[in-house]
Order: sequence, then structure tokens, then C-alpha cells
Amino acid sequence: MFDLYIANKNYSSWSLRPWVLLKALEIPFNEHLMPFEGGFGESHTTFKRFSPSGLVPCLVDSEHDVAVWDSLAIVEYAAEKHPNVWPEERAARAWARSASAEMHSGFGALRDECSMNCGVRVAMDELSPGLKSNLARLDALWQEGLARFGGPFLAGERFTAVDAFYAPVAFRIQTFNLPLSEASLAYVQRLLALPAMQDWYAAALKETWREPMHEAETVKHATLLSDERAIG
Amino acid sequence: MFDLYIANKNYSSWSLRPWVLLKALEIPFNEHLMPFEGGFGESHTTFKRFSPSGLVPCLVDSEHDVAVWDSLAIVEYAAEKHPNVWPEERAARAWARSASAEMHSGFGALRDECSMNCGVRVAMDELSPGLKSNLARLDALWQEGLARFGGPFLAGERFTAVDAFYAPVAFRIQTFNLPLSEASLAYVQRLLALPAMQDWYAAALKETWREPMHEAETVKHATLLSDERAIG
Ligand SMILES: N[C@@H](CCC(=O)N[C@@H](CS)C(=O)NCC(=O)O)C(=O)O
Ligand SMILES: N[C@@H](CCC(=O)N[C@@H](CS)C(=O)NCC(=O)O)C(=O)O
Repeated sequence: MFDLYIANKNYSSWSLRPWVLLKALEIPFNEHLMPFEGGFGESHTTFKRFSPSGLVPCLVDSEHDVAVWDSLAIVEYAAEKHPNVWPEERAARAWARSASAEMHSGFGALRDECSMNCGVRVAMDELSPGLKSNLARLDALWQEGLARFGGPFLAGERFTAVDAFYAPVAFRIQTFNLPLSEASLAYVQRLLALPAMQDWYAAALKETWREPMHEAETVKHATLLSDERAIG
Repeated sequence: MFDLYIANKNYSSWSLRPWVLLKALEIPFNEHLMPFEGGFGESHTTFKRFSPSGLVPCLVDSEHDVAVWDSLAIVEYAAEKHPNVWPEERAARAWARSASAEMHSGFGALRDECSMNCGVRVAMDELSPGLKSNLARLDALWQEGLARFGGPFLAGERFTAVDAFYAPVAFRIQTFNLPLSEASLAYVQRLLALPAMQDWYAAALKETWREPMHEAETVKHATLLSDERAIG
């Protein structure tokens, strides 16, 4: 059985990726939620106890004495045992891996300026050039996948790892009300409607931890409209 | 046969990763070197002709009508046909994938403050806190891999994709003369001595393109000592 270490569901976008993949594919695992202990980097000492990089997510497979300490590496580790993690067809699989890796090292403005904060709704000020360019690329990429592989998911009929990699973007688009084409917004709604995404969202709303740095980032270029979360 | 699109050997760290992997493993490919047309982002229009993200490296497998547009996705695509891309043993493979993914999305200070410029040697000013912390993590990671899997490479006896992912770091350490433990510096020397790395380096020195932005970055926090490159 896998042990998956994650952080706050409301904030931790990297944690969501493997979590939603394993849930959606019904791959069993024990969840260990380790709340952040402050701003970025401040949980390092605690996280180091189970994760060699001091970051989450981290998957531990005790049966084989293995710790996998990065979201993309976790996905590949799971794929070795569960071939349905990636699309079956070669070209769809290559596309899905490219798109996942592009998210893993790219979309910096989207990640910095619209950090994940599931329970909150804001109105953004004018979009920065970097964010506009990220959104244009995101839209082109999603439309290409949906058209080429026939939908309803990015690389075809089934939810695969590439959808998991863009799952946090769905929450960001909801929080920041970001503009995208109709086809891409419909895909966001499909992601948000998945049972695994609804479970994550419900748990995020119940959390009462508030991280001042994350909260400040959310309204840095935006005005707060509403907060759906439980009161701490 | 694979077609691999890369940029300037002197500067393009992402291009080096799949290139050195395919060379070291004797996986045949056609090389297409597309020189940068200015600073970051300015080659986008040209690169878009073969790479969906407008970035290099991009591997094209015409036989299967596939374009793979990210270094890590290229490595996984190659691994499907060539199992020696990753270590054979499960725990070593999980470690190698985690370490590669950590490089793919991390080590920001090292990448920004010590960008690859193979032919140049500089003396750095005081190291920034971010760079110091990146170097501490790099050193711990390398020492862990070398000790746990017995060397001489990061995940054991053979050169695998995780060594390819850290190959640009070897050139950076040479250019910026960065401090690391003896064990890590010996590993840098082993990487630099590989025939594939020597081929890349020799070609980088012969290049006469100079990108003002890359050149300015190199000496932003450092003083130029020497330049081994051909004169343009
Ligand atoms: N590229 C890594 C990123 C992991 C990461 O940055 N995780 C953050 C949380 S989303 C973290 O653990 N931060 C620890 C801290 O801030 O102390 C991955 O894909 O897993
Ligand atoms: N994460 C990508 C990064 C690729 C990347 O940033 N490539 C740079 C060159 S090293 C590029 O193509 N830049 C194009 C430009 O500056 O216009 C990968 O792993 O392949």
C-alpha cells in the first residue's frame, strides 16, 4: 500500500496532482496530511522527516523501501504498476507526458500570481503580460488536446495523469475567474465536477488553518469577493 | 530515427540533457541546432515551427507522428524503447526519477544566477542565500545517490537519465567555480570527462554566436577570468 504525504488541501497545488490521480483511478493509498508551518520553506524541517527534499507531495512505498519525492516522479512510479495512469496510445501518451512536464517546469506567472486557494473567490486587477501569455498557451494546449484526442479529457476518453497535472489550474481559474475559451472553460467544469475533485474541495473548505503568506498572495493583485471556508 | 531540435551548445542547458543521454547511450538521432535569436522568448516564432511550446529541446519521431517538447518527456519517450535510460533496479529508478524531477522544477537560484555558458570562466562574488541553499541540497542529493547506489554515477554503475539531468550543472560548476564536497567535485570531473560531454563542449567552444543577455547574466554577480571560445 502507498503512503502519500501531502499538505493543506486548500493551498497545496503540488499535493493535489498525485492525490487526485490515485483517487480518480481508484489506486488505494493512506493519506498523511501535514499542514504547512508558515510561509514557503518554513515546513522544511518537519517535511524532511519523510521527504528527502523537504517538500510534499512524497509517496512512500514501504514494501519496497522507496520514497518518491516529486509529483511527476510519483506519477511515473504509479504508472509502473498501473498502466492506466497514462493514455494507452503512443502519440497520446507522448503528448500527455509533454504537457505534464511543461506544467511541471512552466507557467510561472500563473503559479506565482494565482496561487491555489480553493475556498476563495476574487476579482483580479488587470492581468500582467506574463499571466496573459501563460493563459494563451494554456488555452492553445488544452484546445489542441481536446480536439486531437476527442475529449472529454485532455488526452482522450479517460482521466489520466495529464488531467491530474492541470487539476490545480481548475481551482485557480475558479478562484481568480480567469478568461479562457468556451472549450477550455467547459473542461474546467468537467474537472471540478469529478468526485475526486469534489472530495478534495469539501475537505479544503473544512480546513481552518490560515497561512498569512498564502492569503496575502491571493489578494496581491485582486479584490476579495467571498470566502467559502469554515471559520477557524 | 529520432530528430532532436536543440539550441546553442554553449548556452542551452535544457538541450544538453536529452542530447547527452542519447549520445552516451548510443541511441541514434539527427541533430538540428537552431541558434537562439535573442534573449529569452525571442526565438519563440521560429521554434514554434517544430515545437508546440516554442521551446527546445523537442524530439520528433516522424515514424509515429510524435513531437515531444520537453526534456523530461523526451527522456520518458526514449525510455519506452530503450529501458537502459533509467536504472534497472526499482528503488534506484524511483530515486533517479525523483532527483531528475527535482532538477526539472527546482534549483531556481542555481539556474538563474549561474546560467550555462560553457566556454567562460568567472570568479563569483559572494554567493546569495538562495544559491547557497541550492548548493547544499545539490551536494546532499549527489552524496546520497553516490553512497547509496555505489557510484560512479548518481544511481549506480551506469550513466542514466538522472546523470543527464545534472550534466548542465557540471558545466556551471566549472564556469562559476562553485564550492561542493570532494565527492561531488569528483563526480563533476567524471561527467566532464565523458566522451559525449567532451563532444558537446568542443562544439560549444567553436560557436561564434554571442547572446548579449546570456553574456550579461554570466557576469551579473561575477568577474570574467577567461573565455575559451572561438573568436566570432
Ligand atoms: N516540483 C515539486 C514541487 C513541490 C513543492 O514545491 N511543494 C511545496 C508545497 S505545494 C512544499 O512542500 N513546500 C514546503 C515548504 O514551503 O516548506 C513537485 O512536483 O512535487
Ligand atoms: N522545461 C523545458 C524548458 C525548455 C526551455 O526553457 N528551453 C529554452 C532554451 S534552454 C528555450 O527554448 N527558449 C526559447 C527562447 O528563449 O525563445 C524542458 O525541460 O524542455
